[in-house]
Amino acid sequence: SASKLPKVGVTIFTVMSQLAAEHGAINLGQGFPDFSVPGPLVDALQRAMLEGRNQYAPMAGIPELRQAIAGKIADCYGCEVDPDRQITVTSGGSEAIFDVVHAVVTAGDEVVMLDPCYDCYEPAVLLAGGVPVHVSLDPASFAVDWAAVESAITSRTRLLFINTPHNPSGAILESEDMQRLRDLLAAHPRLLILSDEVYEHMVFDARQHESVLRDPVLAARSFAVSSFGKTYHCTGWKLGYCVAPAELTAEFRKVHQYNTFCSFTPAQYAVAEMIRRHPEHHRELPAFYQAKRDRFREQLLGTRLKPLPVPGGYFQLVDYSAVSDLDDTAFCRWLTTEHKVAAIPLSPFYAQAPQGQRLARLCFAKNSDTLDTAIERLKRL
Amino acid sequence: SASKLPKVGVTIFTVMSQLAAEHGAINLGQGFPDFSVPGPLVDALQRAMLEGRNQYAPMAGIPELRQAIAGKIADCYGCEVDPDRQITVTSGGSEAIFDVVHAVVTAGDEVVMLDPCYDCYEPAVLLAGGVPVHVSLDPASFAVDWAAVESAITSRTRLLFINTPHNPSGAILESEDMQRLRDLLAAHPRLLILSDEVYEHMVFDARQHESVLRDPVLAARSFAVSSFGKTYHCTGWKLGYCVAPAELTAEFRKVHQYNTFCSFTPAQYAVAEMIRRHPEHHRELPAFYQAKRDRFREQLLGTRLKPLPVPGGYFQLVDYSAVSDLDDTAFCRWLTTEHKVAAIPLSPFYAQAPQGQRLARLCFAKNSDTLDTAIERLKRL
Ligand SMILES: CSCCC(=O)C(=O)O
Ligand SMILES: CSCCC(=O)C(=O)O
Repeated sequence: SASKLPKVGVTIFTVMSQLAAEHGAINLGQGFPDFSVPGPLVDALQRAMLEGRNQYAPMAGIPELRQAIAGKIADCYGCEVDPDRQITVTSGGSEAIFDVVHAVVTAGDEVVMLDPCYDCYEPAVLLAGGVPVHVSLDPASFAVDWAAVESAITSRTRLLFINTPHNPSGAILESEDMQRLRDLLAAHPRLLILSDEVYEHMVFDARQHESVLRDPVLAARSFAVSSFGKTYHCTGWKLGYCVAPAELTAEFRKVHQYNTFCSFTPAQYAVAEMIRRHPEHHRELPAFYQAKRDRFREQLLGTRLKPLPVPGGYFQLVDYSAVSDLDDTAFCRWLTTEHKVAAIPLSPFYAQAPQGQRLARLCFAKNSDTLDTAIERLKRL
Repeated sequence: SASKLPKVGVTIFTVMSQLAAEHGAINLGQGFPDFSVPGPLVDALQRAMLEGRNQYAPMAGIPELRQAIAGKIADCYGCEVDPDRQITVTSGGSEAIFDVVHAVVTAGDEVVMLDPCYDCYEPAVLLAGGVPVHVSLDPASFAVDWAAVESAITSRTRLLFINTPHNPSGAILESEDMQRLRDLLAAHPRLLILSDEVYEHMVFDARQHESVLRDPVLAARSFAVSSFGKTYHCTGWKLGYCVAPAELTAEFRKVHQYNTFCSFTPAQYAVAEMIRRHPEHHRELPAFYQAKRDRFREQLLGTRLKPLPVPGGYFQLVDYSAVSDLDDTAFCRWLTTEHKVAAIPLSPFYAQAPQGQRLARLCFAKNSDTLDTAIERLKRL
């Protein structure tokens, strides 16, 4: 029989991580930290296991974790969400995104996504029978072209994906963007927002993260998705959550309960304790990553790669046109195999990549030693 | 907007677990063990965390775990499966089932399921745009009525769910059933099998578990799903796997990689080590559970509940018609609130429950103390 996802192959993250492993390259490709999970979090998980917290969690997540999440949201965005009716714990941001799409997109519904974007958006939409509609971000600044979004939205548009801080560019949405979003919702009564905020605690230069949760008008029509993997340096723990109004949460949970049902119970207890006892961790995360960003950018000035601005997230885009005129996928392969530094090309993030774009993505969620060695290698370019 | 799953409410498992908690009842409802996870498994998980195995696992699962699974399958069923191209690690049996359905069922495809059956089958089919077709098992023996299955299958049938040992009844498929299945596949070239084998290591009385993996003809057209939560007493770890031929695995992985992408990494290392170092655990599991079953059934003879045969699994069906003529849901609520023993009614496992069936499901995956106290209470009925 024909494939339901004929275009899907191995993801670029897997391809480049494998290539990095084969060639002994430093892996600045796939986004994951190479430093340790906070000690108290590991201890708390161990304790939860030993206390026998190894059976099914409640489908929506343990109450302690949902309350801790509500506390973190109040702390960060000054708003109240109901942990019982608005928060659902998921097996990572990815499951949350998949569930949102399956909860609200019906056959023939259009879903607007802004390219470049993370590779899991489109397949989820296709599996739900939806029609992906791609709108490009500004190719220089990666800002949202709201006029283009506006003209892509029709009466059949059910969902708009936004993502701040943005993967792969690091661009962030500003308060003016949120105003445009409000206007859009006012004009399109059936439209909902999926706000991918997994890098929410990595916004730099004293700017604020524009969560949809800050604004009641936006929050009333949005699913906000986040990920503890990003916040606590444990991308392999696959623990995240989705916040939405009660009626949307009810639909979301119908999918979640028949997809994974619940997520690794001991980690739920551990993260709940971590948020409660160590709120400084998420509060200090922007400064932690900003220091890494600043140091890495400074070092990149000693190479022929040109760093683009990084307002948020843990990725640094570099323009390599002074080094090579290979296309971005060929360049990243060459960089990995010949110079032993793995990077991610941008073209796989697009339905239709812009011609002649010479950009690669480097993850700086790494120890200084790792980044120093990578820089030594990149200096030889 | 209208719900995509208008009939889905809170699952009976959640309802009864909550009711049990509110009324201080012994929870023999939702299926989970109340005894400990094996010590070496907890230790290995702790070690994996401390060794820094906290980032994304490969999408298909870590190679060590897939190899260990292949070894276990060879050990149990005498067959070879390719860990690289046939095994995918998932976030529990539930995610595996959801992914199978989304990988192969397209809009309008019919999917046959045998009632009573586990409650996640139908919603997955509906979300994939499929058409659920329900065939009843024999109401007395819970054997498959193959003539009825045969007549339910059409040219549009894409998938048939089988489940052995069977939840909720404990019935197991026999070699004659597997022959009927082979005949069915021969007659219907587009038909695939989803074999839910999460209770595979709980088959009693020296009978053998009829995995589809034993038979190359069946294996070539089947997805076999299992769950470490059942085998290692950790239902909250949400770790399972799906075995299928390479071409079907390729389609399965397309869904999995955009659904959860991968599962809790430290547990993958821990389970891999457990399978490798302690194969006696899964080998001795049938005897472990058979002893529990025998003891519990013996005790039930001292009550007015009539135990049905339990060839496999960790559930005991009881006929309560000597005690009450309440319908099964009302009876289970009454048993929970008035007698402080929670049970699960069978009607939620049916699209259309048989009139006047007076059966309730009790989970015996519990310490002897728990079961003794439950029996004391049940004696008062
Ligand atoms: C799940 S692999 C991709 C990790 C990631 O978020 C990225 O590198 O963009
Ligand atoms: C995920 S809750 C249901 C657990 C279970 O398998 C059962 O009780 O049948």
